[in-house]
Amino acid sequence: MKIAQPYVLFLGDVTDPLSAKTARGILKWRPDACVGQIRLNENTISLGLPDFTLQQALYKGAKTLVIGTANAGGVIPDNWLGTLIQAAELGFDIASGMHQRLSDIPELAQLQDKTQIRLFDVRHYDEPLKVGNGKKRQGKRLLTVGTDCAVGKMFTALAIEKALTESGTQAQFKATGQTGILIDGHGISVDAVVADFISGAVETLSPAFNDHEWDIIEGQGSLYNPSFAGVSLGLLHGAQPDALVLCHEVGRQHIRNLPHAALPSIEDTITANLQAARVTNPKVQLVGICLNTSAISEQEAQTLCADWSEKYQVPVTDPVRFSMAPIVQQIKAV
Amino acid sequence: MKIAQPYVLFLGDVTDPLSAKTARGILKWRPDACVGQIRLNENTISLGLPDFTLQQALYKGAKTLVIGTANAGGVIPDNWLGTLIQAAELGFDIASGMHQRLSDIPELAQLQDKTQIRLFDVRHYDEPLKVGNGKKRQGKRLLTVGTDCAVGKMFTALAIEKALTESGTQAQFKATGQTGILIDGHGISVDAVVADFISGAVETLSPAFNDHEWDIIEGQGSLYNPSFAGVSLGLLHGAQPDALVLCHEVGRQHIRNLPHAALPSIEDTITANLQAARVTNPKVQLVGICLNTSAISEQEAQTLCADWSEKYQVPVTDPVRFSMAPIVQQIKAV
Repeated sequence: MKIAQPYVLFLGDVTDPLSAKTARGILKWRPDACVGQIRLNENTISLGLPDFTLQQALYKGAKTLVIGTANAGGVIPDNWLGTLIQAAELGFDIASGMHQRLSDIPELAQLQDKTQIRLFDVRHYDEPLKVGNGKKRQGKRLLTVGTDCAVGKMFTALAIEKALTESGTQAQFKATGQTGILIDGHGISVDAVVADFISGAVETLSPAFNDHEWDIIEGQGSLYNPSFAGVSLGLLHGAQPDALVLCHEVGRQHIRNLPHAALPSIEDTITANLQAARVTNPKVQLVGICLNTSAISEQEAQTLCADWSEKYQVPVTDPVRFSMAPIVQQIKAV
Repeated sequence: MKIAQPYVLFLGDVTDPLSAKTARGILKWRPDACVGQIRLNENTISLGLPDFTLQQALYKGAKTLVIGTANAGGVIPDNWLGTLIQAAELGFDIASGMHQRLSDIPELAQLQDKTQIRLFDVRHYDEPLKVGNGKKRQGKRLLTVGTDCAVGKMFTALAIEKALTESGTQAQFKATGQTGILIDGHGISVDAVVADFISGAVETLSPAFNDHEWDIIEGQGSLYNPSFAGVSLGLLHGAQPDALVLCHEVGRQHIRNLPHAALPSIEDTITANLQAARVTNPKVQLVGICLNTSAISEQEAQTLCADWSEKYQVPVTDPVRFSMAPIVQQIKAV
């Protein structure tokens, strides 16, 4: 599965800036893949891209209309359907990370059947998969792991891919969640596969390779998240990482959405991840810690990174605020 | 989902005794639920139950025809279809642990739509599920865990349910795999749910209760199995066990089907399971070890159980060869 680029980013009639995180992520990490945006009215949030009609987007070479927004129910609003159907009629592929499937919209399904257009429901995974086997595969792999969900594992993986590439080391981001897949154009939502196939899905996503140096695999969840740890462990085994980067949000009080569930300590998170990763790669090592320090001042963040770097004996940085260079250096030494 | 009992066990035309493990399991653990067997010819293996026609089974009160055999592909052979369709026409429910769905057989699907009969494809799970939350639930729970797949976790859980019940402690077996579901008539194949819902499925399977003393939850896989560990960890978190029983096969050389994957030590398996279980139940304790000692003599097995009981400071037994009493005693002390 490869979503054709470039994209036109569809923002519907969304007014809450937080709802457009996916579109912003695509624009940040793959700016060359975005020809413009489509907004249903003037009140819709803007990414600062040129506003296009479908026809204009087509003329500019866009191949896929990407729904760049999320909402609580994951349902595609009725008043968006006209635009989506028209896009499919014009020959656009459509990609969505919503829970509701594009292919469950009869008009779109019919157009997919009758024409060349493709519908990508990246939150779902319907392809056949194989059971993982844990056999050593060629190529080096880095996996981002975390103390919890939503602590910056995708951002960190993309920042590492970028920093490595800019420093002359060939690296490929491997997406395991819907936003990452829309950003990169391919990947597997590992939390959407049947449980038996979690590690197998990651083995498929990051097969043996010798045409570049590193696969940078996006982590999911946390071994300590009581909702999603199964996904995290299967991902860890399937990734057979040579290198781990731990991600954490400074100031988080408890596991996300679960006030009764304590956040693990950094020490426990490191130990548990290294221990579990050794099942498929005895040589795994921690190469860095990436913090989301948005809750504290830049000065405090600098001090914290320096302190933790001393304490855990690996480079510690905030990929938004500070340089990735120390972690990149550590990765190159693996 | 509750599969109506009693059952008539359908053995098709299977001649390999190993293929009828499911039927044997049902007969061993729920003998009162089995009215008889249906065999397509004289060469078919026998469970020693009365041989019935469909009409006779109906007359004896059987409510569900259970396919009691497994084969490599998990496909229902064409020459079985006539009997299955006739059974549905006579009003039997049908239950299967095969990979191929009964509901994908058009004649059966039509009968399910048009009549009262139900088709149970227990290897699959299509009901809506919720994401787990790890909140403490009322009632005590025991989970069987293991060094690997197929080391006796289901057998041990059923043996504990039986021994506890016989000793006056009310216990309920909770099935998490297809054979266990067919034995008990209900459960959820946790390896068949979407990965995001593993722990949530177990929370649904073993909700808060106060009408009995223990839920005895069947474990799956192993934290050290590179194919299936994600399922094992989600199951562990969802079960929030008060008590763990570790299962192991004496003499196993490597992880099942994976000669390159080393078996974990007993010590590591205990430590990893207790550590992970504490995420949702800080009071978890190991209450026993159950060994499959079929590879060694009864005398050697007795010595081994005594030695390990000393070494690990918990009762150690073989639930096939020896008494469950010491483990039952330990469970009652939790």
